[in-house]
Amino acid sequence: MELAKRRGFIWPSFEIYGGVAGFYDFGPLGALLKNKIIQKWREFYVVREGFFEIDSPSIVPEEVLKASGHVEHFVDAMVECQKCGAAFRVADLAREQAGKDIEGMTKEEMDRFVKGHKVRCPDCGGELGKIFDFNAMFRTAIGPGSQRVGYLRPETAQGIFIDFKRLQRHARGKLPFGVVQIGKGYRNEISPRQGIIRLREFTMAEAEVFFDPGDPHHPRFSELAGEQLRLWLAKDQEEGKEQLTEVTVEQAVKAKLVCNELMAYYLALTKRFLLDLGIPNEVIRFREQTPGQRAHYSSETWDAEVLTERFGWVEIAGLAYRTDYDLSRHAQFSGEDLTIFSADKKRKVLCHVVEPSYGIDRPLYCALEHAYVQEKKRKYFRLRKELAPIEVGIFPLLNRVGMPEKAQEVYGNLKLKGFMAEYDDAGSIGRRYARADEIGVPYCVTIDHETLKQNDVTIRHRDTTKQIRVDIEKLPDVLKKLLNDEIEFDKAGKPIETTSK
Amino acid sequence: MELAKRRGFIWPSFEIYGGVAGFYDFGPLGALLKNKIIQKWREFYVVREGFFEIDSPSIVPEEVLKASGHVEHFVDAMVECQKCGAAFRVADLAREQAGKDIEGMTKEEMDRFVKGHKVRCPDCGGELGKIFDFNAMFRTAIGPGSQRVGYLRPETAQGIFIDFKRLQRHARGKLPFGVVQIGKGYRNEISPRQGIIRLREFTMAEAEVFFDPGDPHHPRFSELAGEQLRLWLAKDQEEGKEQLTEVTVEQAVKAKLVCNELMAYYLALTKRFLLDLGIPNEVIRFREQTPGQRAHYSSETWDAEVLTERFGWVEIAGLAYRTDYDLSRHAQFSGEDLTIFSADKKRKVLCHVVEPSYGIDRPLYCALEHAYVQEKKRKYFRLRKELAPIEVGIFPLLNRVGMPEKAQEVYGNLKLKGFMAEYDDAGSIGRRYARADEIGVPYCVTIDHETLKQNDVTIRHRDTTKQIRVDIEKLPDVLKKLLNDEIEFDKAGKPIETTSK
Repeated sequence: MELAKRRGFIWPSFEIYGGVAGFYDFGPLGALLKNKIIQKWREFYVVREGFFEIDSPSIVPEEVLKASGHVEHFVDAMVECQKCGAAFRVADLAREQAGKDIEGMTKEEMDRFVKGHKVRCPDCGGELGKIFDFNAMFRTAIGPGSQRVGYLRPETAQGIFIDFKRLQRHARGKLPFGVVQIGKGYRNEISPRQGIIRLREFTMAEAEVFFDPGDPHHPRFSELAGEQLRLWLAKDQEEGKEQLTEVTVEQAVKAKLVCNELMAYYLALTKRFLLDLGIPNEVIRFREQTPGQRAHYSSETWDAEVLTERFGWVEIAGLAYRTDYDLSRHAQFSGEDLTIFSADKKRKVLCHVVEPSYGIDRPLYCALEHAYVQEKKRKYFRLRKELAPIEVGIFPLLNRVGMPEKAQEVYGNLKLKGFMAEYDDAGSIGRRYARADEIGVPYCVTIDHETLKQNDVTIRHRDTTKQIRVDIEKLPDVLKKLLNDEIEFDKAGKPIETTSK
Repeated sequence: MELAKRRGFIWPSFEIYGGVAGFYDFGPLGALLKNKIIQKWREFYVVREGFFEIDSPSIVPEEVLKASGHVEHFVDAMVECQKCGAAFRVADLAREQAGKDIEGMTKEEMDRFVKGHKVRCPDCGGELGKIFDFNAMFRTAIGPGSQRVGYLRPETAQGIFIDFKRLQRHARGKLPFGVVQIGKGYRNEISPRQGIIRLREFTMAEAEVFFDPGDPHHPRFSELAGEQLRLWLAKDQEEGKEQLTEVTVEQAVKAKLVCNELMAYYLALTKRFLLDLGIPNEVIRFREQTPGQRAHYSSETWDAEVLTERFGWVEIAGLAYRTDYDLSRHAQFSGEDLTIFSADKKRKVLCHVVEPSYGIDRPLYCALEHAYVQEKKRKYFRLRKELAPIEVGIFPLLNRVGMPEKAQEVYGNLKLKGFMAEYDDAGSIGRRYARADEIGVPYCVTIDHETLKQNDVTIRHRDTTKQIRVDIEKLPDVLKKLLNDEIEFDKAGKPIETTSK
């Protein structure tokens, strides 16, 4: 985190005004990394799965969220200190002071728990008052006056459900079809104290897969049927067992461990996505939520969790079987008929929904943490090349004899060709390599004495620190192929001896 | 607009609940187009200009917006009907009922204008009350209770200004340097009635260029110095003259028509950006705001305007000389020293700012309107290839004899290679071409009888409707080169006769 802050990945928002808990900024490197993660997610869901992407407002009028159940159910059990008046989320205090997860409990059970475990105000030690529900949506008014209540969306999904009629026309009646939305989601946390893991404003990438409940098949199921999944079943959790159940996607469906093919397919796709972010298989598991933990709209939910050093197991995606809950509620509240004729089956159906819903901020954190490498001589983010915020560093060996001019020319040319390049002429070449390594730049190009004579440059590889020489004319092409893993580094140019710095 | 709605570019939000003025959704094609426009903007500002991108929250605590002046100045002159109670923005009524732009007037002048021109309630004809200021920020509360007031940001810029200390460290003291942010902005319009042109929630792409006020030079000024600009000067507007002043960027600076080199450079870059969206030069002008029209933070503002059929001249970017207004206000309100040592000049400076600030929704609308073509036999969006939401359509000529299977194979392969492809097997091939043309798909690939024999396909070009035959193995490569304008269509394969449908 120190490195991430110092080098411009993430830092607390509103710092010069003392900060506000639950808000983080993505700095110049963090924003680039975030864009690349979003891009990768789009490759999975929009390009390859062929899902439709939409973009709907983050402000939502109250009637939509009454229908969706969020006005009633999107609440946090809250408690105030009777001495100092500070407010807390009960579940946070229980976890911190009694080491227990009480998310599924009723308010009465929580009251008993707080008394039984002598949970106190963490600020002043005062006694806590009665537990009550706090709606965690940010409230606002649309237009002048306060007649029209609106909320900042707690999820992007509702924007998709209320557009269902237009979207199914776009799909020309074919089922299943998927729709995604990537954008901000909001949760007015009572008192967030876990840094980037518990944000009041976060980026979500949600997919809603609409299907005929009589036909929950994925057309390309066979492609992922053999993928191994590590499941932590609800019944094992309830019995206090830590053990995971390892099965293939196909076995999971056959043994009815997951509700249907679509859910199983997207569990596997989620695993593939996390692997592509550089998160190792050993630290990925899928935890089945117990009935008490599930959101009001879900009949089965799997959390994709990643083990981190700093925060333990972190939920980074939730895959929920939302059944026809949302469509039937919106049909009821809006008076619109949201059933459709399935093109293949020639009968009327109210679609069911499986929802793979991802946060973007948390996988970004996990990708950074798991890319962090401490070697003998250097500390750096060994980010996968396709995620590296800066793709190539350009360094003149010396700030004279024509090298800066030549280096600027190379730099300008690479930028014109679309490379995320950075120019650095400050300090020794060793310090510049170290600075570039630190932020995960996979390749650095140096313009030296020989460049001026024979028009070639060195390329240095971050992970091995090996160097090769390449003609300037071939540089963009070679870099592109290296970044796409189309050629091997050792064979991409004339290998040269690396001087250790 | 009918076509844009029907085919899934844009539609009013919350339709099944009767809609809410000032909110639009981007449908499956609109969201793709929007992403491509954002991508292009990033190419201009992040990749080529080398500006840093950051991503800060859309909820901003009140103290930041007190410092920025928005709590005081981000107001609309509003009036209520004394009969029916409906609320309106005074400037809208004046424009609609008296054909006059009164944006710069004081409240007293507006009161006189409304009386003098007998402006009435457009809903019921009732008399209007006294004019008063309405703060156009959406207000909310952060955390439980309403102790901590927050607003939805009216601009993304403030997130950049308050991060200035961290950002200048990232720039290692070099000036000028630029920072951008792309994200939602909000304006709680009183009664928006201009569709996608006046939104309450919109996407902005803003750049803040920090420079030493003693040295307002752009390092690559010469590259754009010769670009022609069409300026509508404030003095000409004040004298009621419609005439534009046509000058080069260099002349504009020399004749002091614009405040400095940086402003002139970014005017030219804005023009280049609009041209790249397919908006013709003849409908682009830069209007200098009169002193009464300028925002509180600006000492010179240029609006990039595009002429549209539906809405007349539309402002799609504002380039403001914000001087040191924001940094000095935040320094004063936060108590932080925001001066820096310029690395080159070795002296302390409080940076000045030139801000090129773009909307994304409006240029998207303009790009669509200007791409719309009505030919004898077809209506379609002749979008530039690089903006086309769907890059390639894949059609089996018939739904039998192995063609769908082969077409699915081609489709799957293109998606794996990252193409935005769409599969369509519904209706005659002519109807499918027409459907693809309509939404601007530049190339369509058809799998026919010959494909099954000799493993080649036809590619059809949207604009000319010409067709060529290409081997399936070469298809991805040929399509890529066609989309990048690296090869000519006629020479990319074996030309074939087109049967007119």
